[in-house]
Amino acid sequence: MVYLTRRASFSAAHVLWSNALSEEENFAIYEKCANPRGHGHNYILEVTVRGTPDTKTGMLLNLTELKRIINERVINAVDHKHLNYDVPWLQGCIPTAEVLAMKFWQQLAPAFPPGMLYEVKLIETENNWASYRGKEEK
Amino acid sequence: MVYLTRRASFSAAHVLWSNALSEEENFAIYEKCANPRGHGHNYILEVTVRGTPDTKTGMLLNLTELKRIINERVINAVDHKHLNYDVPWLQGCIPTAEVLAMKFWQQLAPAFPPGMLYEVKLIETENNWASYRGKEEK
Amino acid sequence: MVYLTRRASFSAAHVLWSNALSEEENFAIYEKCANPRGHGHNYILEVTVRGTPDTKTGMLLNLTELKRIINERVINAVDHKHLNYDVPWLQGCIPTAEVLAMKFWQQLAPAFPPGMLYEVKLIETENNWASYRGKEEK
Amino acid sequence: MVYLTRRASFSAAHVLWSNALSEEENFAIYEKCANPRGHGHNYILEVTVRGTPDTKTGMLLNLTELKRIINERVINAVDHKHLNYDVPWLQGCIPTAEVLAMKFWQQLAPAFPPGMLYEVKLIETENNWASYRGKEEK
Amino acid sequence: MVYLTRRASFSAAHVLWSNALSEEENFAIYEKCANPRGHGHNYILEVTVRGTPDTKTGMLLNLTELKRIINERVINAVDHKHLNYDVPWLQGCIPTAEVLAMKFWQQLAPAFPPGMLYEVKLIETENNWASYRGKEEK
Amino acid sequence: MVYLTRRASFSAAHVLWSNALSEEENFAIYEKCANPRGHGHNYILEVTVRGTPDTKTGMLLNLTELKRIINERVINAVDHKHLNYDVPWLQGCIPTAEVLAMKFWQQLAPAFPPGMLYEVKLIETENNWASYRGKEEK
Repeated sequence: MVYLTRRASFSAAHVLWSNALSEEENFAIYEKCANPRGHGHNYILEVTVRGTPDTKTGMLLNLTELKRIINERVINAVDHKHLNYDVPWLQGCIPTAEVLAMKFWQQLAPAFPPGMLYEVKLIETENNWASYRGKEEK
Repeated sequence: MVYLTRRASFSAAHVLWSNALSEEENFAIYEKCANPRGHGHNYILEVTVRGTPDTKTGMLLNLTELKRIINERVINAVDHKHLNYDVPWLQGCIPTAEVLAMKFWQQLAPAFPPGMLYEVKLIETENNWASYRGKEEK
Repeated sequence: MVYLTRRASFSAAHVLWSNALSEEENFAIYEKCANPRGHGHNYILEVTVRGTPDTKTGMLLNLTELKRIINERVINAVDHKHLNYDVPWLQGCIPTAEVLAMKFWQQLAPAFPPGMLYEVKLIETENNWASYRGKEEK
Repeated sequence: MVYLTRRASFSAAHVLWSNALSEEENFAIYEKCANPRGHGHNYILEVTVRGTPDTKTGMLLNLTELKRIINERVINAVDHKHLNYDVPWLQGCIPTAEVLAMKFWQQLAPAFPPGMLYEVKLIETENNWASYRGKEEK
Repeated sequence: MVYLTRRASFSAAHVLWSNALSEEENFAIYEKCANPRGHGHNYILEVTVRGTPDTKTGMLLNLTELKRIINERVINAVDHKHLNYDVPWLQGCIPTAEVLAMKFWQQLAPAFPPGMLYEVKLIETENNWASYRGKEEK
Repeated sequence: MVYLTRRASFSAAHVLWSNALSEEENFAIYEKCANPRGHGHNYILEVTVRGTPDTKTGMLLNLTELKRIINERVINAVDHKHLNYDVPWLQGCIPTAEVLAMKFWQQLAPAFPPGMLYEVKLIETENNWASYRGKEEK
């Protein structure tokens, strides 16, 4: 069992705000992240797959293919976008790092054979990140 | 002559768009950076001062004081903000890294004795940054 | 199950020396780390919690709260300190990265609901680090 | 159970090419990595061991000893070398990151008590890396 | 006067060897870098231009254009190549970081108006790099 | 004129305290850095030389030689040491980053032909650093 990780990055805006909460509650919970016009990040996305390398090619998965999947299913949709408005499959979400990691997993998982996708890690700033490994705990 | 640098970071949204240009021209020039809702970055700001360290304290400038100046004059105004809308002294600017470096210089320079502020460097992504050293070339 | 990590840093001095060993043994085991006056590091502490994000807020744990816990229980006690002398709850320890990771876990664990604290990682230099996940193996 | 990691680096050349495949297939699979003269990387190797720190020394394993093992068993053999030609124990391999991680594990494992070696991680570029944890899954 | 930098990376092999020197002299001077089959690096190239931003666009030079120039004139020629054999305009050179920085400058300079290209910096490893600012000292 | 930089690192303890000042003044100026037992850092030292590469070797200065000079004249004296007590040529200094950069320059300069040493940069933490270019301004 080998783990292979590909790193990608994208720049996006977001605002943390819940319509189910009052303005006062929003600012109490999300503080400066609730600034209505939004702020943004250089997000880093690390996608890890696992399995046994092909004995013929020495590859677990061709990195070109892994890069293509990540771009087509996530990066192209979120890069240089406002995550609260521009991404159909994020509508209705509060785009915290935790939620984004889960949503990105849902976008990516169908592209792989069962069990191959191991972890989706989303680095929001150099000081915080979230990762998701799917519903079954390792 | 010693150079002393303090690094700070902030997260902000921006959009590159000029009202003096047509929509077509805006997208031709700024490409994905012209996305109307904006996108964002984890900006890194590096401020360099220069001079002769005080023989009594060994300090060119107290780092606590340098940090305070950077926070009060720049970071507090731009952190977790949308640079096109939320910052009075950026109104009317196109917030490219080049323009931001110059504007931040203008905010910072009055806080220092003449000649002490040496360079303002603004890192927009891990792949591009701009710096400004004032009107007189070194 | 989502994992959320917060990174903090602190600068501290330490010396690796055991009073249960002779001077000769100390230098044989700890080499240059046994220099009596001590040396120091810019330590990086990464604290990972895990759980299910709140469906209302999208947060596993508010990062402001996580930061507060880390500061109050660890950073404030060790930042700009000498780890062998200045920290009551490290008295009698040999402050290797392994031991510090375990001690920091003991400081942090009572602040979280059972099972929420997942990992404490302590990076001593860019070339070595230690992590601890509590007594029950994952 | 504490995890302790030591990072090392080496610079090497390699080419991804399988003699079991046609030239056309090689270029289809490995693309620019199949350039016959080879290309190269600044590889980063992170070796993680796990166990209980010695109560007398506070150490899981002396970092000097861990460094010596990594250098003698891996770094000295691969640093400033062409991985396809210069390393006897890599002969016949296609030196992908996945394969290298597994081969380095095989070199390193016999130097440790059973169960102590936990993970070998090989970072090929800032955008991709592979890790191996041996035959028994954690 | 604003300085704008774009970072690019490439992976290449090279060997330091001079045909004007004996085998003994080559190994005495270049040590492990003289290994005949070559070794390699993940090189990072930082290209800095300077000038006054266009008041209409806020740009000193469009980053898309700067990226295109760097790719067409340098990266495409050296990425995943062996620098001693695969690059026509490096033939006869000893590809040290110093020489590469100068050669890259020569490739890049004709693409810019006089005086715009300010510095070419080539990072060979995390521990050494070279930069060149053309024949006229700043 | 090419610039060549070599990076080195060392871990050391220090305390910012001036015997010419009262205890009250020391804490007012140096704040937490005045903690009597000291604290510490993983310092990074970047030494830049400049000149014209030798046409025969392609080298401005052999990196092995540059590394040797840096180790013999600075690193060996300060690594794993307490800068206030253990380094004869730092006695009587207040070891701020500014002062250390100047002192390291004085240690290094005599090892090079006149004009070759260009800059000594000392990175104290990821958020602050100082550099010194000698008495004659560039």
